[in-house]
Amino acid sequence: MTLNVYLSGEIHTDWRAQIIEGAAGLDVSFNSPVTDHAASDDCGVAILGAEPNKYWHDHKGAMVNAIRTRKGIEDADVVVVRFGEKYRQWNAAFDAGYAAALGKSIIVINLPEHQHALKEVHAAALAVCDRPGQVAEILRYALTGALPG
Amino acid sequence: MTLNVYLSGEIHTDWRAQIIEGAAGLDVSFNSPVTDHAASDDCGVAILGAEPNKYWHDHKGAMVNAIRTRKGIEDADVVVVRFGEKYRQWNAAFDAGYAAALGKSIIVINLPEHQHALKEVHAAALAVCDRPGQVAEILRYALTGALPG
Amino acid sequence: MTLNVYLSGEIHTDWRAQIIEGAAGLDVSFNSPVTDHAASDDCGVAILGAEPNKYWHDHKGAMVNAIRTRKGIEDADVVVVRFGEKYRQWNAAFDAGYAAALGKSIIVINLPEHQHALKEVHAAALAVCDRPGQVAEILRYALTGALPG
Amino acid sequence: MTLNVYLSGEIHTDWRAQIIEGAAGLDVSFNSPVTDHAASDDCGVAILGAEPNKYWHDHKGAMVNAIRTRKGIEDADVVVVRFGEKYRQWNAAFDAGYAAALGKSIIVINLPEHQHALKEVHAAALAVCDRPGQVAEILRYALTGALPG
Amino acid sequence: MTLNVYLSGEIHTDWRAQIIEGAAGLDVSFNSPVTDHAASDDCGVAILGAEPNKYWHDHKGAMVNAIRTRKGIEDADVVVVRFGEKYRQWNAAFDAGYAAALGKSIIVINLPEHQHALKEVHAAALAVCDRPGQVAEILRYALTGALPG
Amino acid sequence: MTLNVYLSGEIHTDWRAQIIEGAAGLDVSFNSPVTDHAASDDCGVAILGAEPNKYWHDHKGAMVNAIRTRKGIEDADVVVVRFGEKYRQWNAAFDAGYAAALGKSIIVINLPEHQHALKEVHAAALAVCDRPGQVAEILRYALTGALPG
Amino acid sequence: MTLNVYLSGEIHTDWRAQIIEGAAGLDVSFNSPVTDHAASDDCGVAILGAEPNKYWHDHKGAMVNAIRTRKGIEDADVVVVRFGEKYRQWNAAFDAGYAAALGKSIIVINLPEHQHALKEVHAAALAVCDRPGQVAEILRYALTGALPG
Amino acid sequence: MTLNVYLSGEIHTDWRAQIIEGAAGLDVSFNSPVTDHAASDDCGVAILGAEPNKYWHDHKGAMVNAIRTRKGIEDADVVVVRFGEKYRQWNAAFDAGYAAALGKSIIVINLPEHQHALKEVHAAALAVCDRPGQVAEILRYALTGALPG
Repeated sequence: MTLNVYLSGEIHTDWRAQIIEGAAGLDVSFNSPVTDHAASDDCGVAILGAEPNKYWHDHKGAMVNAIRTRKGIEDADVVVVRFGEKYRQWNAAFDAGYAAALGKSIIVINLPEHQHALKEVHAAALAVCDRPGQVAEILRYALTGALPG
Repeated sequence: MTLNVYLSGEIHTDWRAQIIEGAAGLDVSFNSPVTDHAASDDCGVAILGAEPNKYWHDHKGAMVNAIRTRKGIEDADVVVVRFGEKYRQWNAAFDAGYAAALGKSIIVINLPEHQHALKEVHAAALAVCDRPGQVAEILRYALTGALPG
Repeated sequence: MTLNVYLSGEIHTDWRAQIIEGAAGLDVSFNSPVTDHAASDDCGVAILGAEPNKYWHDHKGAMVNAIRTRKGIEDADVVVVRFGEKYRQWNAAFDAGYAAALGKSIIVINLPEHQHALKEVHAAALAVCDRPGQVAEILRYALTGALPG
Repeated sequence: MTLNVYLSGEIHTDWRAQIIEGAAGLDVSFNSPVTDHAASDDCGVAILGAEPNKYWHDHKGAMVNAIRTRKGIEDADVVVVRFGEKYRQWNAAFDAGYAAALGKSIIVINLPEHQHALKEVHAAALAVCDRPGQVAEILRYALTGALPG
Repeated sequence: MTLNVYLSGEIHTDWRAQIIEGAAGLDVSFNSPVTDHAASDDCGVAILGAEPNKYWHDHKGAMVNAIRTRKGIEDADVVVVRFGEKYRQWNAAFDAGYAAALGKSIIVINLPEHQHALKEVHAAALAVCDRPGQVAEILRYALTGALPG
Repeated sequence: MTLNVYLSGEIHTDWRAQIIEGAAGLDVSFNSPVTDHAASDDCGVAILGAEPNKYWHDHKGAMVNAIRTRKGIEDADVVVVRFGEKYRQWNAAFDAGYAAALGKSIIVINLPEHQHALKEVHAAALAVCDRPGQVAEILRYALTGALPG
Repeated sequence: MTLNVYLSGEIHTDWRAQIIEGAAGLDVSFNSPVTDHAASDDCGVAILGAEPNKYWHDHKGAMVNAIRTRKGIEDADVVVVRFGEKYRQWNAAFDAGYAAALGKSIIVINLPEHQHALKEVHAAALAVCDRPGQVAEILRYALTGALPG
Repeated sequence: MTLNVYLSGEIHTDWRAQIIEGAAGLDVSFNSPVTDHAASDDCGVAILGAEPNKYWHDHKGAMVNAIRTRKGIEDADVVVVRFGEKYRQWNAAFDAGYAAALGKSIIVINLPEHQHALKEVHAAALAVCDRPGQVAEILRYALTGALPG
C-alpha cells in the first residue's frame, strides 16, 4: 500500500520537511502547493500577462495555482492541513473543505489557541495534531502498524 | 426553475435577511446554518451530555451542526459565502471548499481589504460581491433575466 | 428543509415510535425496514416459493428486504442506527457501513456496555446517543435551531 | 489482471496467512487492517495524547485506524470479511456494508452457526465460505480459470 | 416512501397490466418503454426522415427510444425485466445490465426453461419470479410489510 | 413521467417557442439560458461593477450566466442544442459537450450545410433534426408513444 | 496511451485470439471472462459446495464469475461484445448494458441476421463489426492513427 | 506528480509540437486526437464499410474517433483546447464542455479576435493563452514552481 499525501496550508516554516523526514523509508508519495510565496502570488501575470487591477492579478495567479492544488488533493489518500500563526489562511480551510467533500482522510495541524475557531474543520478530520512529527507517526502506523516509542 | 440557495458564513449581521428580502417574489428556497451563536456552540453538549474538555465540547457541537450544514450545501444549487469583519471564519472558507468540490455555483461576499487573502476562494466562485443586495440581483437575473434598474 | 430519516436496527422495542413522537411537528419524513420479525424472515419464501435449505430460505428473504432497506438508506439524509440488547445485530452495523460509504449523516443509539465494540461505527457517526429522545432533540435542533429545555 | 484484495474482520487466527499462502503465485495484492489488537486499540492516544474518558480514547484510535481501513477498502476489487467465534465484530459487518455501498465484490467467511444472523451480509456477497482455503480457490479461479482438484 | 418502478422487456402479453392492477392502492409510480411494436420500430424514420438502409432505419429508432428508456431506468428504484417466449430479447438483458451497473434493485420474471441461460442476469437480481403477480406481492411487501394470504 | 428539457443555443429566432407550442399538453418542463442578448452580455458588469478591459467585462457576464445554464443542463433529462446561421456558436457546442459528459439525452437542430462540421456533436446525440417541430414530435413520442400523422 | 480492452460474449470460436493477434505490437491490455464452458458453469459448486437445486448451482457459479467479469468491465476503456450463432447470449447483452451505463466505449461484433434484434445494443455502441479483424483495426487506429491497407 | 495533458482542437499548425518541446524534461504525459485530417474523416468507412450517405459516413468516423478522444479527455488532468483561424471548430468547444463537466483543469489558446465568442469557454478555463509557449510555462510552473525568465 502506497499512501499519497498532500501537504496543504502554511508555507513559512519547515513543517513539510519535518513530515517528509519523519516518514523516511515509508511507502508515501508527497505533494504540496508551490511554497515560494512570491512565485505563487505572481505566476498568473508572469505567464499570462500583467493586470493593472489587483483583483485580476490575484485571480490569474489563483487559477494557475489551482491546476496543481486540485490535482494534488484529488490524487491524495490523506490531506494534511497545517494552520500556522500568521495570515488568515482561508486557502487552508478551503482545501480542507474541498478534501472533505471528496471523502479524503484529513489530518489537521494547528496551534492550541486556534482550537475553537477550527472546530468545523476538526469535525471533518480523522486526526488533529500539535506538531508535524505526529503526522509522520500516523503515516508510519497506518502503513506498518508500528507505534512510536 | 427553483433555485436552492445556501447562505453560509458570518452570523452577526442581517445580510441573510437582506438577500431574502431582495429576492422577494422569486422562486428561491433558502437554507442556512443555525445562526444563534450560543446554540451553535453548545448544541452538542446540551443534547448529548457535558464534556469537561473544551475540544470535545466543541467537537460534539460541530458534529451535530454538520447534519444541517452538509444537507444544506449538498441540496443547494447556489452557495453564498459571506466573510465579515470579525473572527477567523475558517468554517466559511471550509464551506466554500466543500461546495467547490461538489461543483456548486459559489457567490462570495467580502470586504475589500480581504481581497488578497480570499483569492483562492474567489478562484472557485462565479461571482464576488461587496454587498448582499448584489446576490439578490444575481438571483433575480438568473431566474428572470431582469437586470437591476 | 425536509429531513429524510431512516431508522435502522433493533426491532423489538418502541424506539422508532419514541423518535417519531418526539419529532412531532417537524418537517421530517421517516422510513424504516419492515419491523415484523416473522414477516421479515419469511418474505422471500412466502412470495417466491419454499426452499428446503435454510441458507437459501434466509437468502431469498434478505434479498427481498434489501429492496426496501437500500431505498430507505439511499434516500435518507440521516440514518439512525439503534443497537439493542439482544442478537448479534450485524445487519445494523452493515447498514451503518453502507450509510457511511454513501456519506450520510449517521446517528447511533446504543447501550453503554457496547461502547468499545462500536468504536468503528462511532467513528463514522455525527452523534452517539443513549436514548431515542436525543435523536428527536437533534432533529429539532437541526431543523429549527431550538435546543431542549 | 491484478486483483486488489482487502482482508477485513477477525484478527485472532491465522486466516489471512492461509489465504495469502493459498494464493501464492497469483497476481494478487493483499491489504488488511492493523492486526495487533493492542496497537489498534491504543494508536490514537499513543500518537495524539492521552484521554481520561474511554469513549474518546477509543474514538481517537478508531479515527486513526480509519485512515488505513478506508484506503484499503476503497482500493480493493474484492473485500473478504471473516466473522470469527468471539466478540461482537460490528466492525466486520460495518466494513461489509461500506464495501457493498461502493460496489465491491464481497466474500464472507463465517461459522455455520452464524448463518441466520449474517443473512443481510450474505445478501450483499458474491461468495460465502466456511474456510479460508475457499477464498484462495476463488482468487485462483478468478485469475486463471483453474478449479481445485 | 414512493417506489418508482420501470417495467422492461417483453411487450406482447399483458404482464405490465397485471402488475399495475396487483399493485393497486400502493404508492408506486410505473414507467415502461413504448410497447407498440410498430411505433417502436419506426419512430426514428417517422420523425427524422426515411433511411434506405435497414441498419440506419433501426438505429434512428433505437436512439429515439433510448430517450425514454434511459430516463425510465435512471429514475427507477426497481427495474422489473420480463423475458417472454419469443424473440431474442437482447434489449431486455441489456436493460438488466444497465440497471445493474446503476445499482438498481432488479426483479426478473422468466420461464423455467430459460433458467440456465439467465444465470448471469439472475446473479444481479434481488428476486426471480415465475409470474407477474409475484412482482406485485413484492412491491406490496416492500411498501407495507404485508405478505400474501 | 415528466421530462425536463433544456433548450440551448441560438437566441435570435423563435425556435424555442415553436418547440414549447408543439409540446403543448405534454408533461414537459422547459428551461433555457437568458435569451436577451444585451442582458446576457452585460449582466456581470451591470450587477458586479464595470470593467475597463473587455475580457473581464465578458468574463464576469459569462460567469453569472453559468449559474443559470449549469443548473439548467444539470437538471435536464434532454438537452436540445440548436445551431443557427450566424455567429461562431461555441457556447452551443460547449453545452453539448457538457451535457454529453453528464450522460444527458441530446437532440441537435442544425442546418444541412453544417453537417460535416457538427459530426462530433452528432456522435453524442440521440437525434439530429432539421426543424424545431421534430423536437416536439420526439418529446410527444417519448412521453405518449404517439407518432406524427 | 494504453487501452484496456475487455472481450465479452461468445466463447466457442477463436475470435479473441484473432483480435489479440491482430493487435500485436499495440499498447493494449486484454481481459476476458473464463472461456472454459464447463469450469464457468461449475465453479460455484466446485469451490463452495454442491447444490441439489439447479437454480442455486447456477447461481453460485454466476456469482463467482461476476468477481472476474465486473472487474474486467469496470477496468476497461473499451468493451468488445461478440454475439455468435448459438445460445441465447443474454450474458453478452447484459455485459453491453452494464458497460453502457458505465460510459465505456463499446464495440459489437455480430452476424448480419441479428442486426434488427441488436438495435438497442448497437445504439449504445461506437462501432459495429462483422468480423474480429475490424476490432483490431479500430484499436490500431485509435492508438496510432494508422488505417488498414 | 505526473500531469496527464490532452491537447484538443486545431490540427493544422504545429502548436502541439511547440508545447511538447517546451515541456521537455517535465513529468508530463501528452495525448491528442488523431491529427491526420483525412484519416480522421474516413476512419469509420475505411474500417467498417462504405456509406453512400455523407451523414453516416461522417457519423461512423466520429464514433470511431470518440474511442480515442473520450479516453484522452477522461484520463487527463489538464485539457488544452486550441482554437485556430479556420473552420467552425465545434469539436474543440465540445471537448471543452466535456472536460468542464468532468472537472478537468482547462487551458484555452485562442486568437484575440475570438475573445468575445469564447467567453463561455473561458469561464470554464483556469488559463487563457495567446501562444502555445505559455502552456508549456504553465506546466513547468505547475510541476516545478519555476516561472519563466
